[in-house]
Amino acid sequence: MTGQERSEEKSECVSLSPMMEAVPAPPESERVCVFGTGDLGRSLGLRLLQAGYGVVFGSRRPHSRSSLLPHGAQVLGHAAAAQSAHLIFIAVQREHYDFLVPLANQLKGKVLVDLSNNLRKNQYPEANAEYLQSLVPGAEVVKGFNTLSAWSLQNGPSDANRQVYICGESVEAKQAVIAVATKLGFSALDQGFLSVARELEDFPLQLFPQWRLPLRISIGLSAAFFFYLLIRYVIYAYVTQGEDISFRIMVSLANQVCPIVSLIMLSLCYLPGVLASFLQLYRGTKYRRFPNWLDRWMLCRKQLGLLSLGFAFLHVLYTLIIPIRYSVMFWVTEHTVSVIRENRTTEFDTTTAWRGDSYLSLGILGFGLYVLLGITSLPSVSNALSWREFSFIQSKLGHLTLLFCTAHTYLYGWNRFLSSSTYKWYTPPGYMLCLVLPSVVLLLKLLLITPCVDRTITRIRQGWERGADQRNPKDSQPLIP
Amino acid sequence: MTGQERSEEKSECVSLSPMMEAVPAPPESERVCVFGTGDLGRSLGLRLLQAGYGVVFGSRRPHSRSSLLPHGAQVLGHAAAAQSAHLIFIAVQREHYDFLVPLANQLKGKVLVDLSNNLRKNQYPEANAEYLQSLVPGAEVVKGFNTLSAWSLQNGPSDANRQVYICGESVEAKQAVIAVATKLGFSALDQGFLSVARELEDFPLQLFPQWRLPLRISIGLSAAFFFYLLIRYVIYAYVTQGEDISFRIMVSLANQVCPIVSLIMLSLCYLPGVLASFLQLYRGTKYRRFPNWLDRWMLCRKQLGLLSLGFAFLHVLYTLIIPIRYSVMFWVTEHTVSVIRENRTTEFDTTTAWRGDSYLSLGILGFGLYVLLGITSLPSVSNALSWREFSFIQSKLGHLTLLFCTAHTYLYGWNRFLSSSTYKWYTPPGYMLCLVLPSVVLLLKLLLITPCVDRTITRIRQGWERGADQRNPKDSQPLIP
Amino acid sequence: MTGQERSEEKSECVSLSPMMEAVPAPPESERVCVFGTGDLGRSLGLRLLQAGYGVVFGSRRPHSRSSLLPHGAQVLGHAAAAQSAHLIFIAVQREHYDFLVPLANQLKGKVLVDLSNNLRKNQYPEANAEYLQSLVPGAEVVKGFNTLSAWSLQNGPSDANRQVYICGESVEAKQAVIAVATKLGFSALDQGFLSVARELEDFPLQLFPQWRLPLRISIGLSAAFFFYLLIRYVIYAYVTQGEDISFRIMVSLANQVCPIVSLIMLSLCYLPGVLASFLQLYRGTKYRRFPNWLDRWMLCRKQLGLLSLGFAFLHVLYTLIIPIRYSVMFWVTEHTVSVIRENRTTEFDTTTAWRGDSYLSLGILGFGLYVLLGITSLPSVSNALSWREFSFIQSKLGHLTLLFCTAHTYLYGWNRFLSSSTYKWYTPPGYMLCLVLPSVVLLLKLLLITPCVDRTITRIRQGWERGADQRNPKDSQPLIP
Repeated sequence: MTGQERSEEKSECVSLSPMMEAVPAPPESERVCVFGTGDLGRSLGLRLLQAGYGVVFGSRRPHSRSSLLPHGAQVLGHAAAAQSAHLIFIAVQREHYDFLVPLANQLKGKVLVDLSNNLRKNQYPEANAEYLQSLVPGAEVVKGFNTLSAWSLQNGPSDANRQVYICGESVEAKQAVIAVATKLGFSALDQGFLSVARELEDFPLQLFPQWRLPLRISIGLSAAFFFYLLIRYVIYAYVTQGEDISFRIMVSLANQVCPIVSLIMLSLCYLPGVLASFLQLYRGTKYRRFPNWLDRWMLCRKQLGLLSLGFAFLHVLYTLIIPIRYSVMFWVTEHTVSVIRENRTTEFDTTTAWRGDSYLSLGILGFGLYVLLGITSLPSVSNALSWREFSFIQSKLGHLTLLFCTAHTYLYGWNRFLSSSTYKWYTPPGYMLCLVLPSVVLLLKLLLITPCVDRTITRIRQGWERGADQRNPKDSQPLIP
Repeated sequence: MTGQERSEEKSECVSLSPMMEAVPAPPESERVCVFGTGDLGRSLGLRLLQAGYGVVFGSRRPHSRSSLLPHGAQVLGHAAAAQSAHLIFIAVQREHYDFLVPLANQLKGKVLVDLSNNLRKNQYPEANAEYLQSLVPGAEVVKGFNTLSAWSLQNGPSDANRQVYICGESVEAKQAVIAVATKLGFSALDQGFLSVARELEDFPLQLFPQWRLPLRISIGLSAAFFFYLLIRYVIYAYVTQGEDISFRIMVSLANQVCPIVSLIMLSLCYLPGVLASFLQLYRGTKYRRFPNWLDRWMLCRKQLGLLSLGFAFLHVLYTLIIPIRYSVMFWVTEHTVSVIRENRTTEFDTTTAWRGDSYLSLGILGFGLYVLLGITSLPSVSNALSWREFSFIQSKLGHLTLLFCTAHTYLYGWNRFLSSSTYKWYTPPGYMLCLVLPSVVLLLKLLLITPCVDRTITRIRQGWERGADQRNPKDSQPLIP
Repeated sequence: MTGQERSEEKSECVSLSPMMEAVPAPPESERVCVFGTGDLGRSLGLRLLQAGYGVVFGSRRPHSRSSLLPHGAQVLGHAAAAQSAHLIFIAVQREHYDFLVPLANQLKGKVLVDLSNNLRKNQYPEANAEYLQSLVPGAEVVKGFNTLSAWSLQNGPSDANRQVYICGESVEAKQAVIAVATKLGFSALDQGFLSVARELEDFPLQLFPQWRLPLRISIGLSAAFFFYLLIRYVIYAYVTQGEDISFRIMVSLANQVCPIVSLIMLSLCYLPGVLASFLQLYRGTKYRRFPNWLDRWMLCRKQLGLLSLGFAFLHVLYTLIIPIRYSVMFWVTEHTVSVIRENRTTEFDTTTAWRGDSYLSLGILGFGLYVLLGITSLPSVSNALSWREFSFIQSKLGHLTLLFCTAHTYLYGWNRFLSSSTYKWYTPPGYMLCLVLPSVVLLLKLLLITPCVDRTITRIRQGWERGADQRNPKDSQPLIP
């Protein structure tokens, strides 16, 4: 790095780092411009520099506030900056886009990348990128990178935020943006014309879109069963015996709602797969799309399963604290005292011991498998599994979990299914209601794995179509079973 | 996009998206061909399009079923498609490969990528890729991408399925395939000549290959200890006292088998590392390979440890439900009743309290460390650790876990080791048997960390070789300790 | 591959794989040289070959020990190897760098990549890379890749070890190294001049640098509360009643220290965020840096939270084993016996039942949320969340967790806050002390979410500055809210 090279700086340019000066100016294609020196603009500039691009910031007052800008970047006035590069990132809020109008000449033919997001959906009548295009009709606007935060730009792309979405009218402009994205370590997906910009701008505003339906189902089920059980236990006891057992709401009732909702949601997680198999069997082909409701249901199975695991986890905790509850300790003492005072003798009942221990053991094994399913749902674990391994765990072990948990509940009920005193006010207890769905799912699954049905399903999944032998079989491709 | 450009379409070509038409046709190197329009072919085509390639589908009837194909792709007849690109992906089932024989002329010199998998091992006498090569001897067949599913192609490469394996005779052909793989975001590993194709085709058929040995060990140990304990407890009680305590199988017996198997497998997880150190110490060098059995053992340590954690988890659950078991509640009441009826007074024994609480506390801390080890085994967590951090946790904390769990078991036994009544039918109880291996591992580890042995081991790991000073020290490279 | 091509081998060259011979020698820019044939050198060579580079190993005795080198690599003498490529990786220990001095002529103008690490900090007076530069002043030394282990090179870059850090004087040399790193799948970050090499060399020696402060805090708090409670319970009982309850140290005391430390650390995790908001509010801008202590505190929030979760996990286990403790079972029997012998009658107290069950239920729900927060902290899970989702969980659910756990502790204390017998030796019990910090955090947070304060904070975070309207608003960029 020599003094001579330093003296070659243009007067307008405020170069921030002596380090980069020695580099011969990169050709225009290797230089990009960033308008806006806020958090996002600065982070983007830093990342571009690290990837080997020359970076020119466009600023109204190029000589101020430069201490925060990354080392190695140039700062020019907007017009000069625009002329220095073919690709210009607009890291400015939509409200200030009008400063671009007087630059129309310099921006002609340039690629403008609109990075902006909004604070809420439908904040403006048209997408920010479409608005930008209308302001600078001579430029090629590409929407993109808006799902990235300044933070993720500074820290480099990691597994899940590696994908960026872009859209725009000009294919060449999009190719140029894709090239930059690739060099920055992102994987850019072209989403089509500028008309989808609005959709891209809504991406970062979504809050757990895939969790919404499963969450609603779980809240609905919890509320329904809570009130059902409240009436059957607390209000029933108050009405018929005048007894106040409202304190049971906190633990006993919660510990009935949790396992009930958990078991129902676990069967809701495996029901759509079973239905889909029957639909394929009925249609005799795998090449017709499932109805929309089934598609949506299939797509939220993972979320249904994880919520179900959450309820099972709470059920385990609620069960394990039973012996340290005041009311339980009180009842145990009372029981012992009454045995003594009434001079009763109690007989050990081996059947009850067998039933109780089996019930607990099935619950423990079921929960263990549940946790295993949950762990293999972690992105990093499921990525490390081959397709066959993932399907083995989620399907085979999943149905085994459902079987264990259903058997656990049947053993809990035991002979109370037949006793009329169980049916207070002629209503069945909660655990009976929640057994319906898993029993149906298990029965249907049992049907599906009988050899003859299984053979047909396997052939259909390999591309075979009933009554479709005139079709070109070479086009079917069941490589991945 | 103008109407003129549209009119330039060839009559045979069925272009699916108006979006891509405006793009000038990419040069041949940027165009790839996909034979087969099934799930996999379509997904691959979509991914190629997203990466900026021009995609031409080869189909027998190019005008049918095109609605499912990705937008932007062309569909041509097989012959025309083959001529349009240098690289052709064969996403067709092996049974239909013979349609390629008449295309021999067009395929001459082309690179054919065989993507196919089989449904089971040894389904065909030779590998699919070798069969393909024999059908089209003029083409260069490369096996590859077969570990990917249509699903993973659609969703882009994620952490663990980023690696694809390829093999083939021609280095140039492989380089061309590697280039495409890299552009799609995969990292291609050249596995050698076409003769390894069979191995690659077996990859997706494997089900947890690394888990097989550890699973067999755990099942073998569980079965052995189950029958041993069944005889010692249940059958012994029946034979000597005529008592039926078979209900204990479900919880009490399970809760003895689980911790026993867990502790043995945890020590099996740390034994090979200790043995390897002693072998290096004995040989005086780190440059000789370990015997094969030790290598295989070392490679499944993670699986041994995770299975061990699973058994420990079940042990914790089985222990925590003890107080809500019917038989335990019955016994507690009986005990209290007998104290009253026989007018006994019981003395609080501080030693027993100390022992019991220490035993529980060590178990809790051991399990806490166990869980920590399990969490750091998650791919995403272990990736975030530096080599030194990972080794600190897995080695230092791992041996501490083993120490805690072993001490927990010794405290459980306590003075029963010396009482002859413990040895029913002259056999030791299970927890004594399971203490042998961890005690040996801990003793050997203790030897290894004594200063003088530790110094020698460290020098060996830094590349020092006993009696090898005539060797060129510059070739040894212990940069990473 | 023909015999003719084979015969073209130079006599000095020991080519290891016939496979690569057919490839025409790549141009110099595509060929790299590796000095050192140890673990790291061999792994690096293999990786370079897989990425398509021609690899030449430099060795003093090119004909020996070649069986371990990767197939496809050439082995030459040092001088010949140095001449064959522009980029030379020095995978040799620092102690042997002097063999490079006689090669000064051949190394002139070459880029030497120093990969070395040390065994401990400050092992040598200057950085290895600076020492290398002083030995070969005519070459361009770049420090880099030293955070990678031979193991990670063999297995390819994964999520967290994808970033490599480089530094050096020459920008061109660094660009060349960045190009290779990118092609190997790494993302290289330029850290500046060679003077930071020492820092880079210390990177792999660090052990959990971000965990150090949180670990110290947790150990300090644990020790302080352990001794405080030891005095208040064990020593107090011994001094005032002459009773030996030292056995309580193992479980009872641990079960008080764990929740206390957990709650304090959870509030320490949310305190800095609240303080930062108040600081922004006071300053009226988000563009001024936080004081250093606050910055450091903010950066270790994740670690504080995870340690807090660890303590909560131990608290849960310690609580759940209460009923199987010898002392508890003894006390329960004693209690029942005394009820009988003294012919007392006990009344069921609904308020106590309500309080106890609420206390347990809040604890369970708090712990459930805690675990959820922990799961979303896993790298692979947090990567899959959008910025808004991550902030919703960590901020909204995080404060809810704090609220639940604080309420759980208040309910535990209940009316004992007012009873003078609680204050042994005029000191408050531990759970009262630990309530101070979370109560303050929750109160401050409550202030922040009142509508008027919330509105100001939101505007400041969107880039608004109090009394700064003369500033150029176009430079502010609150795109990511």
